[in-house]
Amino acid sequence: TLPSIRLVSSALIVLPLTLNVRILTIQHYLKPLSVPHRHMFGPGPSNVPPRILEAGANPVIGHMHPEIFEIMSDIKSGVQYMFQTQNSMTLAVSGTGHTAMECAIFNTVEPGENVLTAVNGIWGERAAEMAERIGARINTIVAPPGGFFTNVEIEQALSKYRPVLFFLAHGESSTGVLHPLDGIGQLCHKYNCLFLVDSVASMGGAPLYMDQQGIDILYTGSQKVLNAPPGTAPISFSERACQKIFNRRTKPVSFFLDLSWLANYWGCDGKPSRIYHHTGPVSAFYSLRESLAVLVEEGVEKSWERHQQVAEYFHAGLESMGLKLFVKEKKARLPTVTTIVAPHGYDWKEITTYIMKTHNLEISGGLGPSVGMVLRVGLMGCNSSKANVDMVLAALKDALKHCHKSKV
Amino acid sequence: TLPSIRLVSSALIVLPLTLNVRILTIQHYLKPLSVPHRHMFGPGPSNVPPRILEAGANPVIGHMHPEIFEIMSDIKSGVQYMFQTQNSMTLAVSGTGHTAMECAIFNTVEPGENVLTAVNGIWGERAAEMAERIGARINTIVAPPGGFFTNVEIEQALSKYRPVLFFLAHGESSTGVLHPLDGIGQLCHKYNCLFLVDSVASMGGAPLYMDQQGIDILYTGSQKVLNAPPGTAPISFSERACQKIFNRRTKPVSFFLDLSWLANYWGCDGKPSRIYHHTGPVSAFYSLRESLAVLVEEGVEKSWERHQQVAEYFHAGLESMGLKLFVKEKKARLPTVTTIVAPHGYDWKEITTYIMKTHNLEISGGLGPSVGMVLRVGLMGCNSSKANVDMVLAALKDALKHCHKSKV
Repeated sequence: TLPSIRLVSSALIVLPLTLNVRILTIQHYLKPLSVPHRHMFGPGPSNVPPRILEAGANPVIGHMHPEIFEIMSDIKSGVQYMFQTQNSMTLAVSGTGHTAMECAIFNTVEPGENVLTAVNGIWGERAAEMAERIGARINTIVAPPGGFFTNVEIEQALSKYRPVLFFLAHGESSTGVLHPLDGIGQLCHKYNCLFLVDSVASMGGAPLYMDQQGIDILYTGSQKVLNAPPGTAPISFSERACQKIFNRRTKPVSFFLDLSWLANYWGCDGKPSRIYHHTGPVSAFYSLRESLAVLVEEGVEKSWERHQQVAEYFHAGLESMGLKLFVKEKKARLPTVTTIVAPHGYDWKEITTYIMKTHNLEISGGLGPSVGMVLRVGLMGCNSSKANVDMVLAALKDALKHCHKSKV
Repeated sequence: TLPSIRLVSSALIVLPLTLNVRILTIQHYLKPLSVPHRHMFGPGPSNVPPRILEAGANPVIGHMHPEIFEIMSDIKSGVQYMFQTQNSMTLAVSGTGHTAMECAIFNTVEPGENVLTAVNGIWGERAAEMAERIGARINTIVAPPGGFFTNVEIEQALSKYRPVLFFLAHGESSTGVLHPLDGIGQLCHKYNCLFLVDSVASMGGAPLYMDQQGIDILYTGSQKVLNAPPGTAPISFSERACQKIFNRRTKPVSFFLDLSWLANYWGCDGKPSRIYHHTGPVSAFYSLRESLAVLVEEGVEKSWERHQQVAEYFHAGLESMGLKLFVKEKKARLPTVTTIVAPHGYDWKEITTYIMKTHNLEISGGLGPSVGMVLRVGLMGCNSSKANVDMVLAALKDALKHCHKSKV
């Protein structure tokens, strides 16, 4: 038999490692970390105020210490308030918006089930791709960039495709569209479908009432209106969503995002003790809690109103400069991220580069289907102020004066 | 046909929402965030020194700004050095160790393929569960808690099960075992199998040479020896691993963890431009870079030696108190996390609770298969010092004096 020969061969392999190990070295690494201050007026991340940065620099303690559970409980209350929901299944995923998107889809959908996504920008495409990867059957309804869907169109698709899940982006940050939500949840429920809403770009900046609007799964990110660093993603599940999730035939593909584990870690499952699932990013929980405290102090309605007023002031300023807004219909303009038709005759990339270089200010071009068509300006959370609008307008005027304009 | 009726019905649903919205309110939220200082001598997270906390509090800028790409490039070099690898496919996953574990398994394994995991604690079980969820066929080799595997046993299993992937935990933090690695990579390659190593608890605290030891996929976490907050997980893939990954028939189940996307975001794929994948947790990248700078400054060999010396000093101190080490074989004792046989006649929970209350110091009980059998003490990174050993020994002596001992 072979074992003894193999043992010898394995011992021979060991020898050179033990006797003749060469350590790889590293050079040029010790330059101190240096990060510039910058006006973050793109579609996110937005600026993080010192108060929230400082919260994140609190000492790291254990991810299952009672103080962390209390912080998680505060986060839960804050998210319930921000989402306008009483769902007990409310928590924050240890990841960014994409992680929350996968968490929503992985938990609600089983292989072979039908999923419908509304594609009027990049997010519906990504949701469709995620669902496809886990073996769902995908159908989409498609609107041109800048457009959105009527409830009639949505109902026709629900009736035709009979999906178990319908995905819609409330704030389509790639095109600047704020999608109307009223009535859609009720339509979904009529067809026994769960209503999943991405509010990464809109949450806290535009009215949304999770419970009253019949939203079954809602998530957002920490790095937009909340002004926290990227890395956590609030999410909430309705009773109806939980019914489906906790009666699955198959396990979700991800252990890390399995809601039954997350629910236990976040104290949402009513069980007396919490079992170790993963090591929560406690520093990110500190800053998320602080960012929710800021929102609570202002009041979510006030925050919605402020974003709306600042956006209208911005839009008027743009139009008075002769620039055109990409989203035609006023009520469908996202108050957090404004899309401007890329100025005729200019190279959009030259404009954003000029503004970054000259004004230390980020605005960005399009994303996905809107690349080349728009400039995007995000004024979110603490960045949403008339003073910042004036700063952006001045930077844009300056750029249009100095950047190269073709003679066409 | 139905559309007009539906429109009316949808309009009726809209009305009450618009006219009669009740805003949910929030109370008792405005208490300021408060986090205690605490000696983090459990199996992790460990203490984060001010230098690293301060790095993480730098201003947030864009996840695709050139400064961030430079920081990511520094992280890549630092991880290559720490892992002792020249793999260009080296990066950090935006998540904790579990995310990296899923990243490794999701990318390398396709449904129906055989996976072999070595189970001598909790990590092999979790890896098996993850692989099972994506439709792999699972085989395990099992050793009792505190035990490990010989190369002969491993080769027998490779030969019998012919897996595409073999999972092994280098540092089994639930049982305190440091698994020998020499020769195993070569055995895996003999059987055309990829060698996946979890070094979350061991990396930086015990010798490991990714390239020379033939490890194909290696990952760790930020919150152990590196002393950064939890939330990022360095990972590296060999050329051999990439060969399999980039010739898959099916897409990995996760878009967020798809290596072809991550490789592009981290500049590992040689393509001239980077496409938006997800919003990297830039603050966590700052602190990860700083923690790697600390390791580079000391030198990884020096760090290995220090952890070994401190562990031996600790183990001698424990034995002189009459306590027993859980791992019998000296060379298989993890220098970062020490497992102590739960003192006879005591309730282990009373001991850890007493030490936390009286000494503001975390040590922990067992995890998974070691629950009730051990106490676990982690001295990792900056926490690995003789002064801290003395502090833990004094706390343990005090606890054994004051906690209730049964008369049996």
